[in-house]
Amino acid sequence: MIVIMRSSATQEHIDTVLERLQEHDLKGHIIHGEERMIVGVIGAFIPPALREDMERFPGVQETMRVTRPYKLTGREMHPHDTIVDVSGIKVGGGDCVVIAGPCAVESEAQIMTTAYAVREAGATMLRGGAFKPRSSPYTFRGLGKLGLELLAQARAATGLPVVTEVMTPTDVDLVAQYADLLQIGARNMQNYQLLEEVGRTGKPVLLKRGMSATFDEWLLSAEYIVAQGNPNVILCERGIRTFETATRNTMDLNAVALAKRRSHLPVIADPSHGTGKWYLVQPLALAALAAGADGLAIEVHPDPDRARSDGGQSLTLENFAALMPRLAAVTASVGKRVAAAAMQDIRL
Amino acid sequence: MIVIMRSSATQEHIDTVLERLQEHDLKGHIIHGEERMIVGVIGAFIPPALREDMERFPGVQETMRVTRPYKLTGREMHPHDTIVDVSGIKVGGGDCVVIAGPCAVESEAQIMTTAYAVREAGATMLRGGAFKPRSSPYTFRGLGKLGLELLAQARAATGLPVVTEVMTPTDVDLVAQYADLLQIGARNMQNYQLLEEVGRTGKPVLLKRGMSATFDEWLLSAEYIVAQGNPNVILCERGIRTFETATRNTMDLNAVALAKRRSHLPVIADPSHGTGKWYLVQPLALAALAAGADGLAIEVHPDPDRARSDGGQSLTLENFAALMPRLAAVTASVGKRVAAAAMQDIRL
Amino acid sequence: MIVIMRSSATQEHIDTVLERLQEHDLKGHIIHGEERMIVGVIGAFIPPALREDMERFPGVQETMRVTRPYKLTGREMHPHDTIVDVSGIKVGGGDCVVIAGPCAVESEAQIMTTAYAVREAGATMLRGGAFKPRSSPYTFRGLGKLGLELLAQARAATGLPVVTEVMTPTDVDLVAQYADLLQIGARNMQNYQLLEEVGRTGKPVLLKRGMSATFDEWLLSAEYIVAQGNPNVILCERGIRTFETATRNTMDLNAVALAKRRSHLPVIADPSHGTGKWYLVQPLALAALAAGADGLAIEVHPDPDRARSDGGQSLTLENFAALMPRLAAVTASVGKRVAAAAMQDIRL
Amino acid sequence: MIVIMRSSATQEHIDTVLERLQEHDLKGHIIHGEERMIVGVIGAFIPPALREDMERFPGVQETMRVTRPYKLTGREMHPHDTIVDVSGIKVGGGDCVVIAGPCAVESEAQIMTTAYAVREAGATMLRGGAFKPRSSPYTFRGLGKLGLELLAQARAATGLPVVTEVMTPTDVDLVAQYADLLQIGARNMQNYQLLEEVGRTGKPVLLKRGMSATFDEWLLSAEYIVAQGNPNVILCERGIRTFETATRNTMDLNAVALAKRRSHLPVIADPSHGTGKWYLVQPLALAALAAGADGLAIEVHPDPDRARSDGGQSLTLENFAALMPRLAAVTASVGKRVAAAAMQDIRL
Repeated sequence: MIVIMRSSATQEHIDTVLERLQEHDLKGHIIHGEERMIVGVIGAFIPPALREDMERFPGVQETMRVTRPYKLTGREMHPHDTIVDVSGIKVGGGDCVVIAGPCAVESEAQIMTTAYAVREAGATMLRGGAFKPRSSPYTFRGLGKLGLELLAQARAATGLPVVTEVMTPTDVDLVAQYADLLQIGARNMQNYQLLEEVGRTGKPVLLKRGMSATFDEWLLSAEYIVAQGNPNVILCERGIRTFETATRNTMDLNAVALAKRRSHLPVIADPSHGTGKWYLVQPLALAALAAGADGLAIEVHPDPDRARSDGGQSLTLENFAALMPRLAAVTASVGKRVAAAAMQDIRL
Repeated sequence: MIVIMRSSATQEHIDTVLERLQEHDLKGHIIHGEERMIVGVIGAFIPPALREDMERFPGVQETMRVTRPYKLTGREMHPHDTIVDVSGIKVGGGDCVVIAGPCAVESEAQIMTTAYAVREAGATMLRGGAFKPRSSPYTFRGLGKLGLELLAQARAATGLPVVTEVMTPTDVDLVAQYADLLQIGARNMQNYQLLEEVGRTGKPVLLKRGMSATFDEWLLSAEYIVAQGNPNVILCERGIRTFETATRNTMDLNAVALAKRRSHLPVIADPSHGTGKWYLVQPLALAALAAGADGLAIEVHPDPDRARSDGGQSLTLENFAALMPRLAAVTASVGKRVAAAAMQDIRL
Repeated sequence: MIVIMRSSATQEHIDTVLERLQEHDLKGHIIHGEERMIVGVIGAFIPPALREDMERFPGVQETMRVTRPYKLTGREMHPHDTIVDVSGIKVGGGDCVVIAGPCAVESEAQIMTTAYAVREAGATMLRGGAFKPRSSPYTFRGLGKLGLELLAQARAATGLPVVTEVMTPTDVDLVAQYADLLQIGARNMQNYQLLEEVGRTGKPVLLKRGMSATFDEWLLSAEYIVAQGNPNVILCERGIRTFETATRNTMDLNAVALAKRRSHLPVIADPSHGTGKWYLVQPLALAALAAGADGLAIEVHPDPDRARSDGGQSLTLENFAALMPRLAAVTASVGKRVAAAAMQDIRL
Repeated sequence: MIVIMRSSATQEHIDTVLERLQEHDLKGHIIHGEERMIVGVIGAFIPPALREDMERFPGVQETMRVTRPYKLTGREMHPHDTIVDVSGIKVGGGDCVVIAGPCAVESEAQIMTTAYAVREAGATMLRGGAFKPRSSPYTFRGLGKLGLELLAQARAATGLPVVTEVMTPTDVDLVAQYADLLQIGARNMQNYQLLEEVGRTGKPVLLKRGMSATFDEWLLSAEYIVAQGNPNVILCERGIRTFETATRNTMDLNAVALAKRRSHLPVIADPSHGTGKWYLVQPLALAALAAGADGLAIEVHPDPDRARSDGGQSLTLENFAALMPRLAAVTASVGKRVAAAAMQDIRL
């Protein structure tokens, strides 16, 4: 922490700062400048509220944090890449995973058709929502437990591990029985009780970045999960909210590349939500892989013209099949390959 | 809904649009322009997914919504102001309420001192967090049930109704036993299960706007609560996230004035979170009342230099007492007055 | 400047940093922490590029600026309020000025009618655009020199000082012949040649904040003007661009209050552009004054239904007349008064 | 244009709308819904101010634009890709161009060293600023005319066409004598006089997107240039301003892909400004090409540790040379190739 004094600060003001630091067994180092003094404090643990409190002290102009607020998820103390094992699929180990499926599980026919088709096209995992957060109370909110059962059926038939969202702490046990990878949605990135609950399960977690979450907040939310002793966190960038409305969100691939540098956790990208337009999914999917993402989550629907949610951003089965070789080409050009589905022995 | 066709659209494309509308018993009205055609559709209920699906149709360039997505919270069908009764205090009826208290309940001494002081200064209600959402897992997260009990004790002693946050659906019953007004925090504005749960209680709800929620999303979240049969919703603007970092958030008083126009619900403002700087609380509190807010929520702490959270944005007891006559002056200048606390007979 | 070293930094890394500082006659102060070292540097003048360059040094994690980048416009070295004299009107001296008039000068009848009416209602200055920046090449861009002449005519008739925008360096001399107060529009806040040119004239300048300019950038643009020896700068907040589209811009009254604290320059607010909706002008105008603004700029048009620009955000003459007593009431409630027009002797 | 009436609108309100439309020779088509009426108007030219004015009409709730505001730059009326010829280099024709060089021309040695090195590594054009816009008046602002002469010298020696920024209308003729491609910087994207001036030259123009410009505003600014009869515009995405501060800007690759779809103009990306961090330039450069960009602009400096501006985001000569084969690999993976420099015969 740096405490920047006003140019008008007195010795008494400095003393007050130093005394408060001492109460916390911290030592302040004074640097005398021509215009002002600053006090530097470095400690393994500076109480988070202390810095803010000190901004109020007379003679203090501002305080600044100098260390990153996340520890367990940062690369500094943990230089090697974490590889998350999702029912046999390794995420973050060099191969790129492709998670595909509908926004919401709508019916047996819909999910089974999709599962077979994306498996055939080369997808690595199956996604589908059973519990859906929707901004309007007047829209479809998912099939609930039936949706989970249909996902399990699709997994049994295709061998694709299943990713699905859990929205509330009391649902965690139920969803964890069905899902291979528990998804925390963007709206719940700071639902701390939910983060701790999925942390306790030890199961792999796909943590979507909140729509207006800063990079640091995203990693701090991952920290909540890891702090429960669950290191199996996969970060997912899915677009942030900006002034631009020509696309649904603004895909932040800077954040993908930065996450690969600052964190050891695997990072995937969701170009469906990131763009909100099916015709932008391909270019942004390719871009995300070129930027270093460890995989993609892509919405695919057998009949997006009649989807009960997110129809506008879903690929048809044909478009998805056409996309896969292009993903493979770009992946190869950066020296990786697309991960195969885990359970190769299952007959399609 | 408006369906805007491409200039290259054919009759067949138009027919496909009209047929799909007919499936939903909707009638499309074609308008022929020089460059293109558009199809207008108006109905009491256009399925929300239909508009998005149609964006994919061949020959369709874009679709647009023409009606506001909220019904119960809008002023169009409900022109008269809703007045929410919080244990005898009328919110939204012309008087301005002042909710004051610490970010978090930290101890009996802290909350009792604050409660007596803000009551003495003229506050209308007492706020204090027992369950705190914090972006880092390494920070203080509230006293929990003990915090609720201390709030109840403060209410008994001062007669001030109590406002406190509930963070998860399973806590709603517990918190509702203690709180006069249930607060939904900014991070939970789109925690739909929580919204429905507080809706079911029938208790007054203070709904904070999410940090990056649009105006429409804010009203849609209120709609979730009202749709449960609970009309007792107070909107609270508390700053939005923008590119500006000189202040913690950007207080959006446009939204306060717009909410008074478009919705019948009462609206209050929180200049503590809205600015993040104690020295900006006064000017923005005055501004919010001048803009038409029905009240304020202000963080007050007996020793903000040692607060366990939000110390930098809390007023001291003295500053709060000095603020109250200024609030009264501005309130009077727009033809209103500051609401008195409900239970006048309690001796201080 | 603070240089934060990586936890893995070596002595050699530190030495490289110190040597480079020495090249610039700067002394680095090392602070040893448990996890890492930081180097503090304080000097009256640290070359701006040096900090950025150092971020590349091996062993360096990050660098941070500790002093504010503006000097002449900051309050620290210049604690007393600057009062700008606009042809006899004092801006920033306690009274609130009200600048009123159409977005663009459209005709003699339009500007004269408006000038008489706003003078009658109590406005302090007249505004009107002769040169208009428009985002589309297909829209009205002002009457040019004729517009300036009409403004001069309106001033002669009413005694109201005239505010108008100058858009390009080569127009500065021309516009300065007519205007009492030169306006720099939001789109030109970082047109540095233009800033220097208006700086050289010595005339009062109204500097609008850029739509996405941070607080510091806004003050740095003022610094460009003041650095030319022209201290007569009035800051104008006119709304920033955020994710919210329910209003044209988001009025940032935090910035108004912060500018009053951090700078000695007068600050006014423009609720017409800040909201983009005529029906929100009144609440936000009142709010800006309550927040401490030294004045307002308000768009007024005799027939906004037929305005050639900004009709949707302009007040009618009647609405403006009705607004003035409300402005006076709020101004009085914060201990100020609305400034009278300068040239009282002119007969209306 | 769509005019959405309030549910309470009367026949008289509708008539007023229709009459005003008739004044402009426009015909309104009424659509009767259950809750409200809407009026659809389609014409080749609806006066831009009319829509805004109508929002004020009694009985009108809102108006909406249904056609895109740009004509000449849109793909609808001009389906084929525009190929811009920059002194023999074709931009937009399938090959990817790589523009490389320092932020600012600092000295003969610096620009010549850089020019030879980037040519050797395979760059297609040379960039370098002679006139620099800087947010602080206390920073280096370029060598001016001398900088232009040094660029011409570098071009003569290497055969690389030269890209440099022009900041003000009166400099256009001078800069156009030296530059092969005139750059309009982000801060000047809405400097309309400048846009028209470069439009008049007929020279190729590189139009950077403003830091907070929407997609439509960006294309409208291109429209200003094309409307002068100069179709040689290359769009350049260089990062937008968002709430995220972990990177200098947020690279918006959605906009790159959308521009390829909605416009016929070539689009390049600038990952140096887009990220602000040299170590993120590679991943985002690759991503931009994968997203469909027609080229890149990359800052390269022989000694970025001592650069006079943008040192933190510049690549060293070695890093740039290492990047080129990676760019080639990703370019090939999407079926394109990196363009060779035009004047092959010049000996290095």
